[in-house]
Amino acid sequence: MAVNRDSSVNSCDFVLFGTLGDLARRKLLPAMYQLDRAGLLHEDTRIVGVARSAMSQQEFLDAVQTALNTFVKESLEPDVLSRYLSRLTYYSTDFTDPSGFADLKNHLAPGSVMVNYFATPPSIYGAIGKCLKENELIQPDTRVVLEKPIGNDLASSKVINDQVAEYFEENQIYRIDHYLGKETVQNLVALRFANSLFASKWDNRTIDHVQITVAEEVGIEGRWGYFDGAGQMRDMIQNHLLQVLSLVAMDPPVNLDADSIRDEKVKVLKSLRPIDHTNVYENSVRGQYARGFLRGESVPGYLEEEGANTESDCETFVALRVDIDNWRWAGVPFYLRSGKRMPTKHSEIVVQFKNPPHNLYKDLYKELPPNKLTIRLQPHEGVEIQVMNKVPGLDSSTRLQTSKLDLSFSDTFKNARIADAYERLLLECMLGNQSLFVRRDEVEQAWTWCDSIIEAWQRSNEPPKRYPAGSWGPVASVAMITRDGRAWEE
Amino acid sequence: MAVNRDSSVNSCDFVLFGTLGDLARRKLLPAMYQLDRAGLLHEDTRIVGVARSAMSQQEFLDAVQTALNTFVKESLEPDVLSRYLSRLTYYSTDFTDPSGFADLKNHLAPGSVMVNYFATPPSIYGAIGKCLKENELIQPDTRVVLEKPIGNDLASSKVINDQVAEYFEENQIYRIDHYLGKETVQNLVALRFANSLFASKWDNRTIDHVQITVAEEVGIEGRWGYFDGAGQMRDMIQNHLLQVLSLVAMDPPVNLDADSIRDEKVKVLKSLRPIDHTNVYENSVRGQYARGFLRGESVPGYLEEEGANTESDCETFVALRVDIDNWRWAGVPFYLRSGKRMPTKHSEIVVQFKNPPHNLYKDLYKELPPNKLTIRLQPHEGVEIQVMNKVPGLDSSTRLQTSKLDLSFSDTFKNARIADAYERLLLECMLGNQSLFVRRDEVEQAWTWCDSIIEAWQRSNEPPKRYPAGSWGPVASVAMITRDGRAWEE
Repeated sequence: MAVNRDSSVNSCDFVLFGTLGDLARRKLLPAMYQLDRAGLLHEDTRIVGVARSAMSQQEFLDAVQTALNTFVKESLEPDVLSRYLSRLTYYSTDFTDPSGFADLKNHLAPGSVMVNYFATPPSIYGAIGKCLKENELIQPDTRVVLEKPIGNDLASSKVINDQVAEYFEENQIYRIDHYLGKETVQNLVALRFANSLFASKWDNRTIDHVQITVAEEVGIEGRWGYFDGAGQMRDMIQNHLLQVLSLVAMDPPVNLDADSIRDEKVKVLKSLRPIDHTNVYENSVRGQYARGFLRGESVPGYLEEEGANTESDCETFVALRVDIDNWRWAGVPFYLRSGKRMPTKHSEIVVQFKNPPHNLYKDLYKELPPNKLTIRLQPHEGVEIQVMNKVPGLDSSTRLQTSKLDLSFSDTFKNARIADAYERLLLECMLGNQSLFVRRDEVEQAWTWCDSIIEAWQRSNEPPKRYPAGSWGPVASVAMITRDGRAWEE
Repeated sequence: MAVNRDSSVNSCDFVLFGTLGDLARRKLLPAMYQLDRAGLLHEDTRIVGVARSAMSQQEFLDAVQTALNTFVKESLEPDVLSRYLSRLTYYSTDFTDPSGFADLKNHLAPGSVMVNYFATPPSIYGAIGKCLKENELIQPDTRVVLEKPIGNDLASSKVINDQVAEYFEENQIYRIDHYLGKETVQNLVALRFANSLFASKWDNRTIDHVQITVAEEVGIEGRWGYFDGAGQMRDMIQNHLLQVLSLVAMDPPVNLDADSIRDEKVKVLKSLRPIDHTNVYENSVRGQYARGFLRGESVPGYLEEEGANTESDCETFVALRVDIDNWRWAGVPFYLRSGKRMPTKHSEIVVQFKNPPHNLYKDLYKELPPNKLTIRLQPHEGVEIQVMNKVPGLDSSTRLQTSKLDLSFSDTFKNARIADAYERLLLECMLGNQSLFVRRDEVEQAWTWCDSIIEAWQRSNEPPKRYPAGSWGPVASVAMITRDGRAWEE
């Protein structure tokens, strides 16, 4: 495939700290390959892979090619591969030792924008920043990309963000939440703001409630210790679900600039009604998976996993009832639900509309089935509207049925691939657009709200409720929504 | 197929005046057959075919079977056919001679509801009514079904309706507009009133304009003289398009009773802003098809048809710009368009919504494409919503596209047949439900409004504008909508 010169993409020096690690192999290096294949990398863009190990350039290229073979779905195209590999250089150094960075400059091009990807533990973000600063490697257009988790509560996130802020301005910092890179999540913004059918009534006059579900089929795969120190709240709710919630709930931004959008997202997070020891029981459910069945196989419980501490009361499931105290959403509950070892890998947003003001069909339906807008994030991205139609055919009375009007990207665009979120995010970073990245105040507001819940849980000292692996979570999570006269989507 | 006893359907004596005529053969007898096949005729329901010709019972049954063979799509099922034919009796008489009706009583069952179908010229409706009355054949539960045209202006429609009203109460009179029997037209009511997504936005705050198109491919097929005395305004606009418009525009009824619905429809018709000699030029276009091409073949112009009067200025095409002067619709134009010899047989309603209040995508789109709701009446019944989505895929900027979310009955219900409108209407008549039939005041209000336009045309003495057969009508009809900054759907 010919190289398309997209003139708005800068020439970049993409410096990947942690180039031999899991994230780089599974996501970052394949994503850059895909961007190259799509002609979206500037001709002069280079990739410098930085790690501690001693390794020759050729060994590194072989390792990269192995990673691509493993993690790129399509067969590698020889021309593209060869061009891509020619962008790569291996640089070996201790990230925390400034003296090791002196030569790094020689691998960078003066006209290129330096994009530093910190694919490392957050505890050394500051150390790397210091090394870059001391070697005068940080220019005004230099960028740094950070992965979650940024801390495990408000205080520790501030420590890390402060460390980074010593060396980078906020407008240089690109915090990744990969959900923001998903096609359907970006489509949510277009759906809300380019369609009057939705835009004009996206509030408590027409919406009954919203559900956000991120269900994972996997358990804790060989990283028990790491997860046990975090829990589902910190692992998924604090970042992915709250990010999605803020996009669903935000007011229309002034324009599509990164800060205009993020201003509105922060406003949502600031409007979340606090959940603390006074209301934590009604508004939250903690669960922990026990032995169960998935795909016909028996799977162990959380406490039976390899390396498990059998006394752990860490949660692998969280359900929350969230109130947004502002004019737009007063009275509209947002139900969040996320867990491991659920029946399928399935993520979606369901916006359920209120019923028509008057039920003309009360002879048929005590209550009319509501209209719903479903945005499927995984596994099959797409948008679906549920409406009531008359059942075609002869009958002695009018019968209605629910019909789903579906737009599934994978059918509409048979030949187009759905880009991985990281491809989108790396591209946006190289374009210098921060819209799809998380700003510091969003992180801190999310931690503030989550910390309050976690503290309330710790204060109550109640163990998490068990649920069988392969089920939709503890019964208590059903009770929580049923009490409000509503039900989880299945 | 077993006979299902639908207990709400009465046992009827269906008396078909004009049983050998075109309507009976093409629509009514096949429709009754389909109802029988679906188990929707009461076991004791009988059909008495009345015509003037002398004919034996067997000759009549043969004629009926021939009609079924010709006009029923599926192969006739022997069991059903045999049962159906056993319901039929031929009765020969002069409709206007009371003495010929004396024996008719012997063919009717005392417990059955008598449904008289006047498939005859309207000029003898009164005469038949008189014969029935004089023979004491009209009971309180007796019904009469009338076909259009009921007159050709207000005055003549009153004459005919008065004649019928001498013998029947309004609640016994079932005036057919077969568009009301279409699945999608009935679905329009369900769509509007069982879905808050539409119900709460169906007015001038969210809707920009509505288009109703009834395009016919046919020309005047061997009935030139008849059509020339009427014209497209009387043939299609006064009835079908205004009926559809009133369903689109009506306020929600108090309940689903026939009169509650028809009360709301009449209110719409009363709110139509009159079009007369003061504003007829801006708000109407008359056309007449000239020689052209359809499906690759040359077809003659209206004045070249067999039996044509070459001086005729009768219109075969009408386009109207309609204002509804009420709170709900002030400022929302309804564009009506109907014609013969258009490129395809195509009928639909398009509701175009206003744009979002603020265009966030003005870098991409000077004006955002609007949301649309399309209800297709012919040829493929269904409902479609047009929304804006983000184009999936990587790009240096967000690209949007219009997507259509489609529910097409013929795909969803692969095994279900879409009932012909007459099947629905005959069933509703046997059930005694007048919702899908036109009330007298609707007819008269529609005539009042149409007469004003026709008078204005006659007063102007302008000939209709020519358009080539196979085109979408005269250029003037495009100008009419373009002046408002809008465009016809193609």
